[in-house]
Amino acid sequence: MPTVKPRTLSGFMELLPAPQRQMERMLDTLRRTYALYGFTPLDTPLMEAAEVLLAKGGGETEKQIYRFSKGDAELALRFDLTVPLAKYVALHSHELSFPFRRYQIGKVYRGERAQRGRFREFYQADIDIIGDGALSIVNEAEIPAIIYRTFSALGLQRFHIRVNNRKILNGFYETLGLAERSGDIMRTVDKLDKIGPDKVRAILTDDFSIAAENVHKILDFLSGSEEAAEAFRGRNPLFDAGLDELQTVVRYLDSFGVPADHFKVDLTIARGLDYYTGTVYETTLDDYPEIGSVCSGGRYDNLAAYYTDRVLPGVGISIGLTRLFYILQEKGLLNPDLPAAPADVLVLPMTEDLSPAIALATMFRENGVRVQLYCEGGKFKKKVAYADKLRIPYAVFMGEDEVRGGVVTCKDMRSGEQTALSAADTLERIKEGLARRESGRIILG
Amino acid sequence: MPTVKPRTLSGFMELLPAPQRQMERMLDTLRRTYALYGFTPLDTPLMEAAEVLLAKGGGETEKQIYRFSKGDAELALRFDLTVPLAKYVALHSHELSFPFRRYQIGKVYRGERAQRGRFREFYQADIDIIGDGALSIVNEAEIPAIIYRTFSALGLQRFHIRVNNRKILNGFYETLGLAERSGDIMRTVDKLDKIGPDKVRAILTDDFSIAAENVHKILDFLSGSEEAAEAFRGRNPLFDAGLDELQTVVRYLDSFGVPADHFKVDLTIARGLDYYTGTVYETTLDDYPEIGSVCSGGRYDNLAAYYTDRVLPGVGISIGLTRLFYILQEKGLLNPDLPAAPADVLVLPMTEDLSPAIALATMFRENGVRVQLYCEGGKFKKKVAYADKLRIPYAVFMGEDEVRGGVVTCKDMRSGEQTALSAADTLERIKEGLARRESGRIILG
Repeated sequence: MPTVKPRTLSGFMELLPAPQRQMERMLDTLRRTYALYGFTPLDTPLMEAAEVLLAKGGGETEKQIYRFSKGDAELALRFDLTVPLAKYVALHSHELSFPFRRYQIGKVYRGERAQRGRFREFYQADIDIIGDGALSIVNEAEIPAIIYRTFSALGLQRFHIRVNNRKILNGFYETLGLAERSGDIMRTVDKLDKIGPDKVRAILTDDFSIAAENVHKILDFLSGSEEAAEAFRGRNPLFDAGLDELQTVVRYLDSFGVPADHFKVDLTIARGLDYYTGTVYETTLDDYPEIGSVCSGGRYDNLAAYYTDRVLPGVGISIGLTRLFYILQEKGLLNPDLPAAPADVLVLPMTEDLSPAIALATMFRENGVRVQLYCEGGKFKKKVAYADKLRIPYAVFMGEDEVRGGVVTCKDMRSGEQTALSAADTLERIKEGLARRESGRIILG
Repeated sequence: MPTVKPRTLSGFMELLPAPQRQMERMLDTLRRTYALYGFTPLDTPLMEAAEVLLAKGGGETEKQIYRFSKGDAELALRFDLTVPLAKYVALHSHELSFPFRRYQIGKVYRGERAQRGRFREFYQADIDIIGDGALSIVNEAEIPAIIYRTFSALGLQRFHIRVNNRKILNGFYETLGLAERSGDIMRTVDKLDKIGPDKVRAILTDDFSIAAENVHKILDFLSGSEEAAEAFRGRNPLFDAGLDELQTVVRYLDSFGVPADHFKVDLTIARGLDYYTGTVYETTLDDYPEIGSVCSGGRYDNLAAYYTDRVLPGVGISIGLTRLFYILQEKGLLNPDLPAAPADVLVLPMTEDLSPAIALATMFRENGVRVQLYCEGGKFKKKVAYADKLRIPYAVFMGEDEVRGGVVTCKDMRSGEQTALSAADTLERIKEGLARRESGRIILG
């Protein structure tokens, strides 16, 4: 008698096998692409001492954090991958070489109010480059290339990488005598896409008491291009430094392999966090602006001030993978034609002695083909229906006739086409078919 | 000013980059091998409702479980991958096809007393095959092949897969009139390797009051082979069924590609858990018997009785990956010659305009080579030392001479050999060298 009704916690993504295979494909692609840029994989604990994890303190996320005690230890689950990185680098700094480039793809935990498309457990896929005291601007220029290649490798075609530099913004606000309102202004302007210029104007004027003339100048400046910003050069050293950095990023785009039509300087981008001090990045899907940025980040001046005296400037980006996957699934942008079955071939033995069928399965596996042996009882029709339901591309039958004739009967489950060839020829045919099926994009759009 | 001393919780493995790369290589190998046998990857939440996770109740692990509340939810971290599988299958049973074959590689949590080589957060790498009401014995016969191929793919050579069948043991104890002591006997006999036959004899006689004559018969039987067991056929139906199953497992070993010298029927193996009802498996390293089994499991009759009325028999095995990795590292069995650097090539630009060096890095990356661009300031010697310290196999220099001459200077960091070839020829040379370096075994031994 069952005693407990099984359920999965709300806000926790638990996928069925076919979508899970799509997710695994995305994870593989991220790992492979990040590695191409010299990032090394890290895997830090999901749990940290509460006092260590919350060293930076405060913030909106604090009440969302899963905290608890075990014995006399106060513990907490990580809510991002940046704080564990800061801890890792501070703790192991003498064993690492700088610049230190790491990627980490892992689950993080935030006990948010559950709602559609919001997750309490979700994957982040982060890369960061950490310098020791200094870090070349070329690292910032490289980030758009990594974003471009990552999303291209995922199959996405219609997207833009949008870049700005916070020094430009801070410098510009200084020239207006608004240095101290810089944070407020940026957080407000960051909402331009969402709430529109009228509301932004109202907030800046009413809530932050910024003179209408300055609000006008701000919105005018932000709607301009990199070239328009050039006209402001020479008035503020911070502004000029930011513009130089931005121009370096733009200059090397082509060598880094980023097509101009996938890149845009966008002076309205600021990112919410004051943490960022230089180049900032967002990535938007051309056909789905309402999703917002699917890959964001920026340059920061000091990763781990609360753990170490060592000054560790860095630059990083993050993909909220669980949310992205959810959205792609919802919008039907995950390619349904890529194989999602647990096996490439279902081998159906039809002889008393199973040895020939098993030996065939072994030979296929030795050649890299994923095989399931199906030896359960039941009617022939039920067995073929199993392959069909799981969308296994090929069914292979080994009966007395096949064993005697030294052939293998193989059915392409999609076309229905059936062949009786030697095991080696069947293998070749299957491998060709699989390569064709695997060649599609993961993300359509 | 730092406010908190960074630290990692004791009992939590946090690897430096080079060993982490070795761990990733093991994870990749497991994923690839499990997939060859038609297992689909699953990824269930690390957290479950406490009432769901503890439905089975009790057990030694209960007080080790991380339990806590958030809002009005009672939560717990998973302590194995079997209970979440039971939940998953019970919850989604109408959307799954049976037999359902899944692998899951994930972290589990047990708040054990911290001690050397014991972990509170550790990876388990599990496969299970779940039937709906019934499951062919061939699935049990396939498991040794999966174990063999997994450890072979990891490079291990000197190991044995040891197999028994609990029906044989239960049947034999029935013939002695000891059916009800069967669990006690098995748990005791399971310690034969650790405590020796004298202590086992003493426990059986003194603690469980089993007649000396029967103890003698038991130990005599267990020290025998499959052939010796054959002599007992015909006295007990359960015993005979177990022997038939064991013989089926043995019969198909060869077709499944398991060499006879890596397999052993071992009647002393019982596994601690009463959960198992048929074939049971252990895997031991020939040169390190003291480690015990590195991959164990067995057949069970019902996966999820506490969640569903549906009868779900299955068979599965588990590798305690974190513990295995720790032991391999400690015994020096991880191949130090496999590349563990974050990049294959360090590109060092030596011109004012970085475009040629960046374009070269882009070309290499497009060809699958992992490249780090090094653009930090500092002396030439320091830059080369960086490649050396990280054990990056190749350093590539792009100076004015190279740009003018249309060549690339490439230094093999191990041999010191330096070439000046075209970018395409340099790429070829690097790819050949990398393939050679990658060809070694992961685990020596």
